[in-house]
Amino acid sequence: MHFPENVRIVEVGVRDGLQNEPTPVDTATKLALIRKLSESGLRHIEAASFVSPKWVPQMADHREIMQALAIEGEKSVTTYSALTPNLKGLEAALECGVREVAVFGAASESFSQRNINCSIAESLARFAPVMERALEAGVRVRGYVSCVMGCPYEGEISPLQVAAVARELSDMGCYEVSLGDTIGTGTPLKAKRLLEAVTREVSVERLAAHFHDTYGQALTNLYTVMEEGIAVIDSSVAGLGGCPYAKGASGNVATEDVIYLLEGLGIDSGVNLAQLARTGDWISRQLGRANGSKVGQALMAKY
Amino acid sequence: MHFPENVRIVEVGVRDGLQNEPTPVDTATKLALIRKLSESGLRHIEAASFVSPKWVPQMADHREIMQALAIEGEKSVTTYSALTPNLKGLEAALECGVREVAVFGAASESFSQRNINCSIAESLARFAPVMERALEAGVRVRGYVSCVMGCPYEGEISPLQVAAVARELSDMGCYEVSLGDTIGTGTPLKAKRLLEAVTREVSVERLAAHFHDTYGQALTNLYTVMEEGIAVIDSSVAGLGGCPYAKGASGNVATEDVIYLLEGLGIDSGVNLAQLARTGDWISRQLGRANGSKVGQALMAKY
Repeated sequence: MHFPENVRIVEVGVRDGLQNEPTPVDTATKLALIRKLSESGLRHIEAASFVSPKWVPQMADHREIMQALAIEGEKSVTTYSALTPNLKGLEAALECGVREVAVFGAASESFSQRNINCSIAESLARFAPVMERALEAGVRVRGYVSCVMGCPYEGEISPLQVAAVARELSDMGCYEVSLGDTIGTGTPLKAKRLLEAVTREVSVERLAAHFHDTYGQALTNLYTVMEEGIAVIDSSVAGLGGCPYAKGASGNVATEDVIYLLEGLGIDSGVNLAQLARTGDWISRQLGRANGSKVGQALMAKY
Repeated sequence: MHFPENVRIVEVGVRDGLQNEPTPVDTATKLALIRKLSESGLRHIEAASFVSPKWVPQMADHREIMQALAIEGEKSVTTYSALTPNLKGLEAALECGVREVAVFGAASESFSQRNINCSIAESLARFAPVMERALEAGVRVRGYVSCVMGCPYEGEISPLQVAAVARELSDMGCYEVSLGDTIGTGTPLKAKRLLEAVTREVSVERLAAHFHDTYGQALTNLYTVMEEGIAVIDSSVAGLGGCPYAKGASGNVATEDVIYLLEGLGIDSGVNLAQLARTGDWISRQLGRANGSKVGQALMAKY
């Protein structure tokens, strides 16, 4: 077993998580959550999405969130990023003092059409000016690729297709490309084959794993890709955000569960697990939902 | 990766699962569950425990259950086993026509004392006549060792201690020794170190993994021990049975989640996952509990 010594967690609970919760969460609660997450040692928090409140009412307060974080931005050790799907969103984000943004592509044509209403090629063309403007403003850009191990409409997705999209995002200037198993159908063998294909186009140091736990396989898949050198993992405190394609099922893998795995492997993430578990318990109570982290549940039962 | 071609599942939901559910389940429902499990392709089902109903009211109907199963026993392709902690229990089980029994030891002194009220050595001495009588009656004996990767009272448990208990059970005549991560605190590295120590005393073909999912790590731990040759896995349909040491937390790993992992690795178990998921959903509804299998939840949301 050859694992990385350190893993960087990109906490996506506030954005990818709360965006998929049925009820919008108020801005003060979001900011309190973000601060608690940062205090637990998380150094990269995706905090908002600059999309139309018509489409995503859960993210309507993107300006208030990013402005509040920008004020403490200079002295903060934590990077707060925001999703900016188009130039309009990016300009608004820049006005709020954002230092890092993300763009979101898909490896599945059907998913791209249904999710962002254009082909993969069109979406990449749309990102080009976003990327250019961001880099010009000195803002880093992270790229997402969704459906990397399966699509809710097409089923299997070719690793070569994922590799091609990852390569395009990287060539456009994304400093990191996050590979999203959007529907959680990944398995260890699929994950290995995926990385084999993608690392031929983008070096493993510039890749992240964003695996959903819909079928309970996320940790095992993360284990196998860490064996191949992946050292950046996207996860969501308390497993916030259900799976939008299967009612009642889980979405994002819980950060607490990932940290427990990392600790067991002797991998440092800088996160205080006990503190994080308390934060996960707190936000679950705030939302009146069950804690989606098994580690969180087990630890809180002991405290 | 070197995985076994086939894995045998020992379904423990009816015994280890229902024993830890707060409310006793009626005999007819148990028998219906057992039949559905067998129809889904499970070939080894632990169905009852011959213990005093004073201590374990959930298992009070052990005679009715095992007698009913013995009637179809001759023509059944499924093995139905029962826990028999002492000679009295074994004699009762034999009267019911049981063909396989199991004894239950611990790798932790404190756990043995608090759980079965005697030292490890005393428990093993108590098993000797049980084992002798069972083998004489032509009945196979399976051995369990609990707390193999941690104890709720002692914390860490030495792999050498586990190996010693496994060796004693094997020497006494157990055809298989199941290693129980009772509190689910195992990690991949612990699991590897455990197997390294135990396989020096008992060959890997005679070992099974019985991992709890309290911290969400069970599948990853199973993945790592299968890499080391483990080909028998204990699991519980719908994750029946919470963790008795942490309210609200999970106990047994869900059989559906294990089968999904196996299918992804190309490992055959003979189980029809769709049929099993329906059974898991059915029993969860019967018990008025949430389905503890992520795969079960995801599949049922699609059906």
